Amino acid sequence: MTMTEIIEKKKEGQSLSREEIDYFIDGYCKNGIPDYQVSALLMAICFQGMDEEETFHLTESMLASGKTLDLSSIPGVKCDKHSTGGVGDKTSLILCPLVASLGVKVAKMSGRGLGFTGGTLDKLESIPGVRVSLSPSEFFEAVRKVGMAIVGQSTELVPADKKLYALRDVTGTVNSIPLIAASIMSKKLASGSDCILLDVKYGKGAFMADKDQAEKLAKEMVRIGMRFKKDTRAEITSMEQPLGLAIGNILEVVEAIQTLQGKGPSDLVDLVLHSGTTMLLQAGIYSDAKKARSALEKNLDNGKAFEVFRSFIKAQGGDVSFLDNPEKFPTAIYSYPVKSLKGGYIKSIDALDLGLISMELGAGREKKDDMIDPTAGIVLAKKVGDYVNKGDLLLTLYTERANKRDLLSRALGDYEFSDEAVTPGPVVEETIRLVDGEFEIEKE
Amino acid sequence: MTMTEIIEKKKEGQSLSREEIDYFIDGYCKNGIPDYQVSALLMAICFQGMDEEETFHLTESMLASGKTLDLSSIPGVKCDKHSTGGVGDKTSLILCPLVASLGVKVAKMSGRGLGFTGGTLDKLESIPGVRVSLSPSEFFEAVRKVGMAIVGQSTELVPADKKLYALRDVTGTVNSIPLIAASIMSKKLASGSDCILLDVKYGKGAFMADKDQAEKLAKEMVRIGMRFKKDTRAEITSMEQPLGLAIGNILEVVEAIQTLQGKGPSDLVDLVLHSGTTMLLQAGIYSDAKKARSALEKNLDNGKAFEVFRSFIKAQGGDVSFLDNPEKFPTAIYSYPVKSLKGGYIKSIDALDLGLISMELGAGREKKDDMIDPTAGIVLAKKVGDYVNKGDLLLTLYTERANKRDLLSRALGDYEFSDEAVTPGPVVEETIRLVDGEFEIEKE
Repeated sequence: MTMTEIIEKKKEGQSLSREEIDYFIDGYCKNGIPDYQVSALLMAICFQGMDEEETFHLTESMLASGKTLDLSSIPGVKCDKHSTGGVGDKTSLILCPLVASLGVKVAKMSGRGLGFTGGTLDKLESIPGVRVSLSPSEFFEAVRKVGMAIVGQSTELVPADKKLYALRDVTGTVNSIPLIAASIMSKKLASGSDCILLDVKYGKGAFMADKDQAEKLAKEMVRIGMRFKKDTRAEITSMEQPLGLAIGNILEVVEAIQTLQGKGPSDLVDLVLHSGTTMLLQAGIYSDAKKARSALEKNLDNGKAFEVFRSFIKAQGGDVSFLDNPEKFPTAIYSYPVKSLKGGYIKSIDALDLGLISMELGAGREKKDDMIDPTAGIVLAKKVGDYVNKGDLLLTLYTERANKRDLLSRALGDYEFSDEAVTPGPVVEETIRLVDGEFEIEKE
Repeated sequence: MTMTEIIEKKKEGQSLSREEIDYFIDGYCKNGIPDYQVSALLMAICFQGMDEEETFHLTESMLASGKTLDLSSIPGVKCDKHSTGGVGDKTSLILCPLVASLGVKVAKMSGRGLGFTGGTLDKLESIPGVRVSLSPSEFFEAVRKVGMAIVGQSTELVPADKKLYALRDVTGTVNSIPLIAASIMSKKLASGSDCILLDVKYGKGAFMADKDQAEKLAKEMVRIGMRFKKDTRAEITSMEQPLGLAIGNILEVVEAIQTLQGKGPSDLVDLVLHSGTTMLLQAGIYSDAKKARSALEKNLDNGKAFEVFRSFIKAQGGDVSFLDNPEKFPTAIYSYPVKSLKGGYIKSIDALDLGLISMELGAGREKKDDMIDPTAGIVLAKKVGDYVNKGDLLLTLYTERANKRDLLSRALGDYEFSDEAVTPGPVVEETIRLVDGEFEIEKE
């Protein structure tokens, strides 16, 4: 077996065996196989794909490249969630404390990543004092006591993914369903939870533009998780307009606080309640979806979810006075209100472009070493379906950077109007489970 | 412009601009762009191809990576020929002296390469004393005086090809028509001849198994050559059975000598006369194909072609007593005759497998550093269309390696028989020219 033979085999569209996949992952991690052979294979995989068996073996092999967390010393059912990400996606900040307030244990590892805004870690770090690198014992202790913790990805878990991802990032090989599925699932499996909920977003503001592709990725990941005997489910959620109203690190933290206090925007609340219900069912804490949902609603209203969030931030070193008085958060030097030039129903909002604008305002990273400005971003005043009059506020841009006035008319152009009433679609469109080897798809 | 963007663009099936191709070749040669990005791009090219413009620009860019030979100080029309190679292909050894005997000047650079037998350089070096690395002045002097010379590829010409080929070889990206066309043509163009004849072989024993693919490659190369204002033509030749009777370095040199003395096997003679005619027409030495062919036949018979061969070998330091007395060449320790177990007409001979057997006998290299055994190889006694009786000799295997007896029955299995008479097809099936922008294909 040589790496060149493995590349040729995949190039011709054949399936790779478990041994061949192990040979390549193992050889790559131990430096025997050079980057240039791996990148050629990755490109061949982008074109020829991988079947279920191959994707499973790839995940297995990547998982075996490092340690796996053993969470068994933490009592209760441990649930993890993962979102493929989108514009304004601050769901973890709300969902994790909410389900933890009902007894689910969440030991979550998150990333930073590139993109429109920072990742969950960047958002957390915009709260003064928060530490996202805890020692294993601190991490376990926080989950045991508070019910949840969110920390950075440990370098001891899935080193193969770290190496492969860095290579994919610079060789045009990010966009491949089996590679994405194995990357996400190997990390989720290594994190040691009992249940996994995947939020696969599609639409203009998401990583996957196409619903079919999102569904394919979701099924692939559910299949892998179930083969590892983890209750794995996926939600297909729409990212045609930004999620909630805030885009940007501090802006999203503030929106998360409001949502945890029962004052969140309806689409974000809907998503959180939907995902939370699924997680409570997965954890076996409720067996009835309606009861689960009303328990969640209750804990948003009575402050219990916010109380867990407060304890979680405190346990990780954060200054909770900012949570109690969000007006303490610093604000951007410049704020630009954008007002409508016409009246009508909002038909669509270009999430992708608003994401790019928020990056230009300073909220996200273009390159790995870019600094994030935690105050920068966008707050929407109106969403799809809302009626506006000429002169009404549509959104506000926040930035520390001078000379960003040209983004105002660009942001205005991201709104489309209609004379007729518009009803926005549901955020969660499908929930996907694998029951007795068959996919069960629940549509909204 | 970044290399990642260029990779993504090709991955999505878009055409690369001249600037993008220059950026990648130039960056690769000057070490700015790493192997792993180049191999990913090469794999994307294998899947998405390159259009005419891209392939032309790639050739141009590779050519610009090094020097170009200026042969203008040599009087006469300089012609080059290139064969994509096959089992038993010793054509250059015969064709070059033959056309040189009629006034064509041949300043040829050849390779060694991997495969069934050595390359032209290895065959030449099996003649004691021959040197294939001449100084530029020795090389020019030999072409001027003898009419021809064959030397190794200069490292000063097309360094981009050397670097790219080494990478393609280990990343499963050899097999791509635009990459092959640009590689061959950049080297031919750098060698500075006025006319180029391409022998594109197809069939089991050739690099291209498929005739359509061979034709596509041939057209691509002719197009590139003509855009560089070189009279470029291509022949599509069949490699379903080995060419001639001998496979292996010394064995092929001896067959070349016999052919140059008018005693060659008919398929090899046919090919040499066909290619020679084309080259004489290209060089403008004859304008009538029939007259050209009969001049060539004459010079095989009257010893003039052999005389040029002798002068050429002498000019490059070879001991011509071996040419005058081929029985002086060393022979292999073991020789195994393989006899037919049945009677009938020979329907087919598996050229590929005989090539692989000859490699196992020691005639070719599996890896770059393998030593070639100049005495090893195969001599066929019968070819397609011949009638054999049970017990007749089919072929003889020659090797210095013990324990190769198992190859006898394998070689026997490479012959297929028929009860009915079989007429072998012509060796040269098509000649391709580009006349006023249109391909003119002359079929046999």
